[in-house]
Amino acid sequence: MSTTVSPLAPASVPTLPVIAGVRLATAAAGIRYKGRTDVLLALFDEGTTVAGVFTKSKCPSAAVDWCRERLAGGKSSKGGLARALVVNSGNANAFTGKTGKAATKLTADIAARAIKANAGQIFLASTGVIGEPLDATKFNGVLDDLASRAAPESWEEAARAIMTTDTFPKLATKTVKLGKARVTINGIAKGAGMIAPDMATMLSFVFTDAPIAAPALQALLKSGVEDTFNAVTIDGDTSTSDTLLAFATGAAKDAPRISRASDPRLKAFAKAFREVLADLAEQVARDGEGARKLVEVLVEGAVSKASARRVAMSIANSPLVKTAIAGEDANWGRVVMAVGKAGEPADRDKLAIFFNGVRVAYKGMRDPSYDEAEVSALMKQPKITIKAALGLGKGRDRVLTCDLTKEYVAINGDYRS
Amino acid sequence: MSTTVSPLAPASVPTLPVIAGVRLATAAAGIRYKGRTDVLLALFDEGTTVAGVFTKSKCPSAAVDWCRERLAGGKSSKGGLARALVVNSGNANAFTGKTGKAATKLTADIAARAIKANAGQIFLASTGVIGEPLDATKFNGVLDDLASRAAPESWEEAARAIMTTDTFPKLATKTVKLGKARVTINGIAKGAGMIAPDMATMLSFVFTDAPIAAPALQALLKSGVEDTFNAVTIDGDTSTSDTLLAFATGAAKDAPRISRASDPRLKAFAKAFREVLADLAEQVARDGEGARKLVEVLVEGAVSKASARRVAMSIANSPLVKTAIAGEDANWGRVVMAVGKAGEPADRDKLAIFFNGVRVAYKGMRDPSYDEAEVSALMKQPKITIKAALGLGKGRDRVLTCDLTKEYVAINGDYRS
Repeated sequence: MSTTVSPLAPASVPTLPVIAGVRLATAAAGIRYKGRTDVLLALFDEGTTVAGVFTKSKCPSAAVDWCRERLAGGKSSKGGLARALVVNSGNANAFTGKTGKAATKLTADIAARAIKANAGQIFLASTGVIGEPLDATKFNGVLDDLASRAAPESWEEAARAIMTTDTFPKLATKTVKLGKARVTINGIAKGAGMIAPDMATMLSFVFTDAPIAAPALQALLKSGVEDTFNAVTIDGDTSTSDTLLAFATGAAKDAPRISRASDPRLKAFAKAFREVLADLAEQVARDGEGARKLVEVLVEGAVSKASARRVAMSIANSPLVKTAIAGEDANWGRVVMAVGKAGEPADRDKLAIFFNGVRVAYKGMRDPSYDEAEVSALMKQPKITIKAALGLGKGRDRVLTCDLTKEYVAINGDYRS
Repeated sequence: MSTTVSPLAPASVPTLPVIAGVRLATAAAGIRYKGRTDVLLALFDEGTTVAGVFTKSKCPSAAVDWCRERLAGGKSSKGGLARALVVNSGNANAFTGKTGKAATKLTADIAARAIKANAGQIFLASTGVIGEPLDATKFNGVLDDLASRAAPESWEEAARAIMTTDTFPKLATKTVKLGKARVTINGIAKGAGMIAPDMATMLSFVFTDAPIAAPALQALLKSGVEDTFNAVTIDGDTSTSDTLLAFATGAAKDAPRISRASDPRLKAFAKAFREVLADLAEQVARDGEGARKLVEVLVEGAVSKASARRVAMSIANSPLVKTAIAGEDANWGRVVMAVGKAGEPADRDKLAIFFNGVRVAYKGMRDPSYDEAEVSALMKQPKITIKAALGLGKGRDRVLTCDLTKEYVAINGDYRS
């Protein structure tokens, strides 16, 4: 595994404030890794609400199944309430059949006993190798110890315990007014498409002390991911385990209780919540395997936003576009190719393409005024913005990705499992 | 550009027989390359029928537009008849605006003058750099010379003249009975996804002396590509210029004239025609950029053939599956991931996965009897078959691809245009 921090990492790791009602602890349980933490326990005060969005994979992990059932209010749970979150790295507990299902139940039972709560209010996430049985008995004792040690300040430790091949921990925070109260939103994440040997998972957990009812939290999360986590791609591959959970303790003093996402008092909060998700999602793109460039793809002039998204994803997932960026080549011909293959309305003779603000092609031809030397210099920057203006309508969208380097192939190909 | 022949190349280049009514010649016109041929002229006797299938890109090249118009019977052409094919490598004449359209017209006019035919019966294909104007005046003189030199034996020269970054020429042939006559089908191709710097094109041309009316030839071609050229992927990127044209001279002695694709006399011919397409398509996969392994993806037990195709393409286009194959790793977890992300009906707990015939996972779990050492040895073979059995229905399909190596990234990223 790589030990070099991505050149695109933020300059420093932010220090996250305490959130009333949340305590965290981590441990090295020896799930797979040696000499590092691999279990996170987050404890929540009673009354904490929860919401979640998950991978669209038809082969989801056992933990994803577990969380979906708990959110739906399956037996032995009150839907929408959470007392704890248990995350392990090193084993995804995916494609593990009945054993995997039993492991989720056992993990939740051990946690429930440790904190004297209902197992139906324990949420789970696992990331790591696919297809290996997860030995949940390893959590015996460990979770009791974590429960006794949990502390409100342990945000960076929490972000580190969920890492797999991430090269830096990912944290973000915002404080914002809700009614007359000040409330906080903290988030942590681990990377997507960061998969070595098999670690196909994006995990993110967001926490707030705002009192928000579960359905409102779910609505915030669903609309919040649309232009953040759902607008990031590393390699177009989707994990069996992608999980984003939000927890609202409601412990902020004097904050109004919010029951509907449409509540006008929620406006500033909703914006800050989306900003935390956007910050975490960008950090995921900045830590794509082997990434040397952050790539922002802007599409405008599409027939709709959905169409713009599909064109942007076609560009962002094109191996030929991504290798060109790695080679610092303003290869707009490949962008034309990726627009053309998206299957969305596009008119070759109305298309314009820009690299870092410089128009290189328009009206179906190379821009005659385009200065190769100027654009070559721009391509050396660590962030590259590719804009495709389709000239058809008002649909626009934005997607983040990274370049495709030999390092990516080395990380994912140069080993024997 | 790579000068090493792909390790997956066929042992020898086949010698193609003469086809009555077809003559070929090549030249070095200096379009872009030095010291190699880059123009092919194929001449057809009067009455030759033609059919074509093209890229689905919304940004097609000028030559693709030209051929489509000619096939549709645009003005100054009788739809479905061809007297010549002009192919150049080195410049795709794609995203070249009005200049590009004018270049196709000028090329066809020069060819028409050289062979004293109608410009509407000249077919064109271009492959090479995108966005550079094609200077069609370079064909002046060259095409006259080619017309005078054209000979019926020059198949390998023809296959070489259309190469860009292909590492070997691609040819295939079949001889088959049509009625009481023996007829021949010859084909040549250049690779897909073989794009350095910008050479985003698969081109293939198939020739026969069978007398087949244009609509029947079109029907044969359309059904023939479905499980051959349309079932090959290198990197999921689709060129602006993909072109497959079929020409039938009708010059075979004593062959019955076929006017409908459903004619029962066409059965053996249709099979041989499909075999030529399949042979060429496999050669394209064997010459994928940087390829070290030929990868066959079989999907069975899907709810339909179309669903099986989408699952197979999801596996074949997954960078994580392809890098694992490059690393000789039987990484079935990534195959589960790719099945799951396809968006098609799949049931984790009914899924079985095989590498080169050995079952490694079934019923949503690792196969307990799977011998790691045995499978590791199999993964060293030059051809890897991945089978995913979904266990839902009777839909099955097959797709060919290659592995994703550091060479691919080097070819497409290690240069400045």
